[in-house]
Amino acid sequence: MQADRILGIDPGSVITGYAVIEVNGQKTQLVRADCLRLPKAPLAERLGIIYHGIRAVIEELQPTEMAVEEVFVGRNPSSAIKLGQARGAAICAGAATHLPVAEYTPAKIKQAIAGRGAADKQQIQHMVRMLLNLKETLQADAADATAVALCHVHHRQTAARMAAQGITAQNITRRAR
Amino acid sequence: MQADRILGIDPGSVITGYAVIEVNGQKTQLVRADCLRLPKAPLAERLGIIYHGIRAVIEELQPTEMAVEEVFVGRNPSSAIKLGQARGAAICAGAATHLPVAEYTPAKIKQAIAGRGAADKQQIQHMVRMLLNLKETLQADAADATAVALCHVHHRQTAARMAAQGITAQNITRRAR
Repeated sequence: MQADRILGIDPGSVITGYAVIEVNGQKTQLVRADCLRLPKAPLAERLGIIYHGIRAVIEELQPTEMAVEEVFVGRNPSSAIKLGQARGAAICAGAATHLPVAEYTPAKIKQAIAGRGAADKQQIQHMVRMLLNLKETLQADAADATAVALCHVHHRQTAARMAAQGITAQNITRRAR
Repeated sequence: MQADRILGIDPGSVITGYAVIEVNGQKTQLVRADCLRLPKAPLAERLGIIYHGIRAVIEELQPTEMAVEEVFVGRNPSSAIKLGQARGAAICAGAATHLPVAEYTPAKIKQAIAGRGAADKQQIQHMVRMLLNLKETLQADAADATAVALCHVHHRQTAARMAAQGITAQNITRRAR
């Protein structure tokens, strides 16, 4: 069985976190988790750094799938535009290299990693460290990106188990209601 | 003197307009104006259509500069995210091909094309048709993209004239206050 590599992204207009994890049967390990820090520069330059940065990671580490955190929609439309642009740039790096892209809400990611939808940043950092058996705690945005990737692995495994038992996602949705 | 080609973009999450105009000394002519209509599809696919569509235009028509309309920030953060993502995808196509990218607010574009910041869509369509001596009125988003490109030409020419007279943009800003 060939290993899959999942690229997780936590997009942001100031810091964009990314992580690649490798899944081989039941074994999951971290390949790299880091972040792109964007300088104070014109918008096109900053979006270019996200786009080229994520493309470079894709070319070097060859992930097979991508998972992105859905941007938190606050009350400020101006921040929402900035976040949207950063997210668009990261997703384009995936689209340009024809990676399938999955999306997860922050609540879904927290639920998958920490067992509840309201976990805080520190708890996510702690759980990512435990789940991947890391020696050190990851930087917060890198940890969030890793959490997105882990959430995707979790959902893939659940979907595969359900498929093996003849249960479709639609059935599950109905049960959950 | 070599001709410059300006790529104008009016980004949108449903329709993204684009236009390429050629500037040769005092002569300005339309090379192409059209729009990308996005299907109801997963986000990554839609952003991929914008990214690949604009890249294809860049590769075919070889613009030397790009100008993008700044997204109108309404009251709804959810629409702002969507617009931001579309805008990010279009700008990434420019960043990926190392085009310089300029940005103009809707008010600046309207001011440059129609002489006042509050012009409506129909007036923009009319002025674009007049300024470029077109036989037919362009589709609204294609006309908006053409207006962005024309606004950029206008600002470049003003900047060049000011530079010839030893006036810097900073001086102008001070005077305008």
